[in-house]
Amino acid sequence: MLNPPAWALHSLVKARVGHLACSTKYGIPLNVPICFAFDGSRIYSSIDEKPKKAAPLALRRVSNIKENSNVCLTVDKYSEDWRKLQYVLVLGRAKVNQQGKKFPEAIALLRKKYRQYNSMKLEMRPLITIQPVRIVAWKPLTTPRTVKPKEYD
Amino acid sequence: MLNPPAWALHSLVKARVGHLACSTKYGIPLNVPICFAFDGSRIYSSIDEKPKKAAPLALRRVSNIKENSNVCLTVDKYSEDWRKLQYVLVLGRAKVNQQGKKFPEAIALLRKKYRQYNSMKLEMRPLITIQPVRIVAWKPLTTPRTVKPKEYD
Repeated sequence: MLNPPAWALHSLVKARVGHLACSTKYGIPLNVPICFAFDGSRIYSSIDEKPKKAAPLALRRVSNIKENSNVCLTVDKYSEDWRKLQYVLVLGRAKVNQQGKKFPEAIALLRKKYRQYNSMKLEMRPLITIQPVRIVAWKPLTTPRTVKPKEYD
Repeated sequence: MLNPPAWALHSLVKARVGHLACSTKYGIPLNVPICFAFDGSRIYSSIDEKPKKAAPLALRRVSNIKENSNVCLTVDKYSEDWRKLQYVLVLGRAKVNQQGKKFPEAIALLRKKYRQYNSMKLEMRPLITIQPVRIVAWKPLTTPRTVKPKEYD
């Protein structure tokens, strides 16, 4: 599905955090929470200046994507009322770049969404770009609408 | 690290939702939000009665785990104050069962954590069990403690 419902697109634009799963080519997955921005067609995530376990290009997410571009970015809402649960899975192909035509736009989009990025030199950091291949949007089956008595008036 | 810090264990016990990444043996990852319970050594998640895209055993997460047991369960907290971010990654091996010695205990633990499960027949549903192999606990580097002036008194 590449024409996801409006609520799913809204969720991809607005969600403050997503979960990025990538995998070695041998199928060993890694799953990290990420900040990201969605321009309506691609998803961008900076290997930003938040403290990391390794240098930017030595990070597991980067080495995984370099050997295997398949990723799954998940954006969801949890609620104790399980009828309100929802998730969006973006199954796609990722790459890691430090330059490119879209690079300045992507950085600007990330800064617009996260004011925290105004004090980070994202221009100097690698950027993950995800090209969606399939988008899966899930909500529990719609329960029948409760008809208010006055609608029978 | 199999002796994670106390905050990470607490997070694994208390978190209402986690994100489970699994992968085909060819490295195509899937990442789904799940409800789960942690008994201090293993993690349990029921293929419960929330509406799904397929029958329990036909679900992608189940077929992935059957062909490749490597998984990564991620539990995290997002905050706009990025000094308060944290995540715990459980890298482990998963299996899917409909019976077994631990099965009733796992179901009881899930029901204790989620009252929503009291009205679901979890006994009839497959259960994912994750055996952690490595646990990675991450918080930003501790920033120096702000010393209040009166401490100089």
